[in-house]
Amino acid sequence: MSVEGLSVNFATIKQGGSFGTLVDACLAHGITTISPWREQVHGVGLEEAARIVSQNGIRLSGHCRGGFFPAADAQGRQAAIEDNKRAVDEAAAMNADCLVLVVGGLPAGSKDIVGARQMVEDGMAALLPYARQAGIPLAIEPLHPFYAADRACFNTLKQSLDLCDTLGAGTGVAIDVYHVWWDPDLKEQVARAGRNGQILAHHICDWLVPTTDPLNDRGMMGDGVIDLKGFRRMIEKAGFSGPQEVEIFSHNWNSRPIDEVLSTVVERFKTVC
Amino acid sequence: MSVEGLSVNFATIKQGGSFGTLVDACLAHGITTISPWREQVHGVGLEEAARIVSQNGIRLSGHCRGGFFPAADAQGRQAAIEDNKRAVDEAAAMNADCLVLVVGGLPAGSKDIVGARQMVEDGMAALLPYARQAGIPLAIEPLHPFYAADRACFNTLKQSLDLCDTLGAGTGVAIDVYHVWWDPDLKEQVARAGRNGQILAHHICDWLVPTTDPLNDRGMMGDGVIDLKGFRRMIEKAGFSGPQEVEIFSHNWNSRPIDEVLSTVVERFKTVC
Repeated sequence: MSVEGLSVNFATIKQGGSFGTLVDACLAHGITTISPWREQVHGVGLEEAARIVSQNGIRLSGHCRGGFFPAADAQGRQAAIEDNKRAVDEAAAMNADCLVLVVGGLPAGSKDIVGARQMVEDGMAALLPYARQAGIPLAIEPLHPFYAADRACFNTLKQSLDLCDTLGAGTGVAIDVYHVWWDPDLKEQVARAGRNGQILAHHICDWLVPTTDPLNDRGMMGDGVIDLKGFRRMIEKAGFSGPQEVEIFSHNWNSRPIDEVLSTVVERFKTVC
Repeated sequence: MSVEGLSVNFATIKQGGSFGTLVDACLAHGITTISPWREQVHGVGLEEAARIVSQNGIRLSGHCRGGFFPAADAQGRQAAIEDNKRAVDEAAAMNADCLVLVVGGLPAGSKDIVGARQMVEDGMAALLPYARQAGIPLAIEPLHPFYAADRACFNTLKQSLDLCDTLGAGTGVAIDVYHVWWDPDLKEQVARAGRNGQILAHHICDWLVPTTDPLNDRGMMGDGVIDLKGFRRMIEKAGFSGPQEVEIFSHNWNSRPIDEVLSTVVERFKTVC
């Protein structure tokens, strides 16, 4: 029996082995919506991954991930665009809802965050016709400001939606509670995104207190301070009814048996989300 | 010879001993503006600290720190207000430019960040008449969103300035590059704060890539990705001409000899700030 409305991002269970193994583990827990990472797809080859997805009736709430547009020179920026086209191809072959973009931070040696943002805009503008052609929406994931320097120089919903408005059709946002829960402008911007049909994905986990590791200490839903039920009400009120995708980067959870992780995910999804 | 425009926050040299020792070390490097922490003042007693400040012609660019207004019950919130009054007394006795506020995060067990923000507003409103009477401006320091849960639920300049506008005279902001450098709305909000005379302090350090510890891995100016000269131009253009206060929480710098730290601070201040 399928767990309606739940998706599992494969970062949450990356300890579990190959793409096929992870899909099987999800299916055993009634999870039929997933979001894989490119290296997991590459591990079995795109054709085989697409076959597994199709034959098992799997839905992809997203494909992770494109982005990282800024680079120190034009050649590097062009290479990023080409690589993003391959990510679009993969998303299309697996019929993903969207390609999630971690847009990139400062090029090496740079202190110019405004310039980096321009590189993101330029890179996305160059990629967009290809993505539209493939029918794959581009989902900017505003990352927590902690990652502004090295992963994503778009850090709030407002800033990301402003860019979507500039770029137009085929763009939107992935709203991850971990990255945006603190934002004083959250409610207004979620409503705005919903109004304009720009919510492409909704990721969940929790914010632990204390958070000891800036990269790999995300919490299981219910273990932290985010009002997850309230967040979901807000996003549904904005018109989004897509799945809640569980994405937990965590040394803790990534070191446990995959069945324990998935059992916990399903139980918490049903009780606190 | 005094180093014009430089202040040293005593968090940067907390390994250096008592209040008097830290002041002497600063004076030896030509630093005559400081910002101490309450426990350092308490260590020698307020009267002695005020005497040291006065006799040595020391200026305090701020007193660190008040705040932490949210609490689980009314008694806890009232206790916070009373404690903040003592911090105001200390700031007044040492003739500090302002009392810096780390406003506090979520009360234990709470997931209600909107409610916590209201507690901050209520606490500041209760404190403000006392602070005005003492002639001590209250400086909200918007903290990096990484600290939203456990230290400060005010995380952007805009949000903090909105609260200042609500509360009125005697309030403003401490602008720390570490906390706000990533903000897409930075330029507009610094200009707004300047226009309204709300810039009470300007803290500097740098953002390291990677940042390995969320609490104690701030960088020495020049070692990270913040455009410090550009930031200073922006803040001066907004009308602020007060000192740049060096505040570096760092296991690295806090484990070095205090003279090495202060030599480096002065050299970097003169070259990259």
